[in-house]
Amino acid sequence: MTSQEIQAQYDAFKQLGLKLDMSRGKPAPEQLDLSSALLQQLDGFTAADGTDTRNYGIASGLPEARALFASLLDVPAGQVVVDGNASLALMHDAIVFCLLYGITGHAPWSRQQPVTFLCPVPGYDRHFSICESLGIKMISVPLSDDGPDMGLVEKLVAGDASIKGMWCVPKYSNPSGAIYSAEVVQRLAAMKTAAPDFLLLWDDAYRLHHLSEQKHTTINVLEACERAGNPDRAIVFASTSKITLAGAGLAALASSAANIAWWQRKTSVRTIGPDKINQLRHVRFLKDRANVEALMERHRQLLKPKFDAVLAQFDAYLGGIDGVTWTRPHGGYFIDLVTPPGCAKRTIALAKELGITLTSAGAAFPYGNDVEDRHIRIAPSFPSLDEISQAAKGIALALRVAIAG
Amino acid sequence: MTSQEIQAQYDAFKQLGLKLDMSRGKPAPEQLDLSSALLQQLDGFTAADGTDTRNYGIASGLPEARALFASLLDVPAGQVVVDGNASLALMHDAIVFCLLYGITGHAPWSRQQPVTFLCPVPGYDRHFSICESLGIKMISVPLSDDGPDMGLVEKLVAGDASIKGMWCVPKYSNPSGAIYSAEVVQRLAAMKTAAPDFLLLWDDAYRLHHLSEQKHTTINVLEACERAGNPDRAIVFASTSKITLAGAGLAALASSAANIAWWQRKTSVRTIGPDKINQLRHVRFLKDRANVEALMERHRQLLKPKFDAVLAQFDAYLGGIDGVTWTRPHGGYFIDLVTPPGCAKRTIALAKELGITLTSAGAAFPYGNDVEDRHIRIAPSFPSLDEISQAAKGIALALRVAIAG
Repeated sequence: MTSQEIQAQYDAFKQLGLKLDMSRGKPAPEQLDLSSALLQQLDGFTAADGTDTRNYGIASGLPEARALFASLLDVPAGQVVVDGNASLALMHDAIVFCLLYGITGHAPWSRQQPVTFLCPVPGYDRHFSICESLGIKMISVPLSDDGPDMGLVEKLVAGDASIKGMWCVPKYSNPSGAIYSAEVVQRLAAMKTAAPDFLLLWDDAYRLHHLSEQKHTTINVLEACERAGNPDRAIVFASTSKITLAGAGLAALASSAANIAWWQRKTSVRTIGPDKINQLRHVRFLKDRANVEALMERHRQLLKPKFDAVLAQFDAYLGGIDGVTWTRPHGGYFIDLVTPPGCAKRTIALAKELGITLTSAGAAFPYGNDVEDRHIRIAPSFPSLDEISQAAKGIALALRVAIAG
Repeated sequence: MTSQEIQAQYDAFKQLGLKLDMSRGKPAPEQLDLSSALLQQLDGFTAADGTDTRNYGIASGLPEARALFASLLDVPAGQVVVDGNASLALMHDAIVFCLLYGITGHAPWSRQQPVTFLCPVPGYDRHFSICESLGIKMISVPLSDDGPDMGLVEKLVAGDASIKGMWCVPKYSNPSGAIYSAEVVQRLAAMKTAAPDFLLLWDDAYRLHHLSEQKHTTINVLEACERAGNPDRAIVFASTSKITLAGAGLAALASSAANIAWWQRKTSVRTIGPDKINQLRHVRFLKDRANVEALMERHRQLLKPKFDAVLAQFDAYLGGIDGVTWTRPHGGYFIDLVTPPGCAKRTIALAKELGITLTSAGAAFPYGNDVEDRHIRIAPSFPSLDEISQAAKGIALALRVAIAG
């Protein structure tokens, strides 16, 4: 197509009056319908051990909820805490506790300023917001399909004791879909860090969220840390937000026994216990790992066609265009569309004129700063299949106009 | 009775093999049954404004949940945030945000060490645990039936800029049942504080939790602060833990528009939103203030006989004993039994031998330190009426033995 033809198609698209918010990775209503049993009557409120789930207590979560997450995360139930409705809140609080108290025998990070985190990029904007809000300095490290640039990571953490943590989304990473290789996980677990209280914030948000028939796995980071002699290095976070209901699900963290004891001490002053009614509802609905995996297969069947529709439009409208690439994720919730340098912001603005709201340019980078202005996060999950196909075409046209312009 | 007779009765009681945990103010199962509708099917998941409550977002709570708490707390809905299942967690987080960020334009408390809180005593142990855990120094101030000793409070806050906060349970205070008078609230709102960022942590836990037919009220602290020219001084906390389900209810905070905006900014990095499904369940069940008050009347009918049973046993076994007094609360969850100096710990140990677990001695004081060793917190709510009557007799006997011994 000539640039006139592109512009004409773009202008025609604008007349459609589309209005689509694709800024966040939200499950679609049909996905939420898969868990409608959670809205049904709860028959009996007594947990397996006789606990009346309607009353106070059980700060680390119902034993059966801990057991369920243990089976999903391949860790012992005693090393799992189930609390709250959002793994993001658990990550936030873990960092806050490190700042105010220090982790297991170490000084509070707030007394060891500056505190620095490594941030594989592109990454998850809400991770970076936590750091920015809490005054934690961020250093970007490039993320490839098999994980972060480990040579650079090892060099940085060995030489800088202010580097206290690193964000990791080990599987189907947000937004690029990267899957950390066994070698990467082992090197992260074993690397020499100048800071003795260095932490891997292991956001296993998409552990069970496959898009392809091949169910990718990553090696167990807690076991790898243990084997490498750094048993307290990683805290694993997960939730059912994209398994059951987003915002009304369960969140959990897993770590070494020492870190879990630390977490329990620090949270015991904050809360008398989580919402055990919702935990009981979830355990009864989700039952066990096999059942969760069957549920995730139904999510996959709803999500896969949407991703395919986006990829088909990108192939059709962006295939062979110089400097334009995009990821073909095997799982997770996002496609990372990479534009020629200096085109992401303009494309997002042009898409906005078509009625398509995308994640802000730069969101996948610390401080919102995508220096080359190249990355656009595409979230295909929420719109209907027809809408997403149309929107993908609109985004492609916007990018073509941006490149031409 | 002679001390031999007392000892004989105590020994006979021991043979009963009672096993009762009265350490915490837990609702009884019959009270939780009053909210069994929350376990029923939720018909439809759409909020009044069309929000799909099953998906992410609405960080400050569903508009109808905010409106419900606004009507219960007599504040504008825009000045209410509904989040989480525990008001204690909101108090904790408010203090953490003050430490790390400072409140609305002020420096972080963590950079203004030491930080001191005033603690009316006897008070709520979990308030004091938050301070102790976060390294906040506590100064006890005596609490009378109509509130804290305001002369002392005014003197302390005027002269010490490290005093950044004060815990207040304004109505049916835990454990003494004190009700802050209008004058006390007005003086708290108006007093000159050396710290410009001084906060009243206003834990309105028992606002609707009457035991007598007279429904006591306290004056609106946010309005009092506003009138006194200190609009940002108070943060009000409340929950439905003792209205619906303990731990599976809703929590809320209310404050000035500026403080609410501050809270929203700080929590927006922590969470994408609360469990709106549970908020919708609650709004549909609780409906409005009149309905909540009718529900609280049913709680009262279950609780009042238990309190009466305790008071009857205390009257029978402790009436006229030198140095022994107890509160006759008009609401709330506790009776404060005051022993002669040096008898509380021993009484609690002796009660334990009877199979009665009480709140630890000193719990109602900062650092667990009841210097005169006089206060025992009695929590009559959870046991059955028969059990509580028996337990109260056991506690009275234990105290008589302690005094004799």
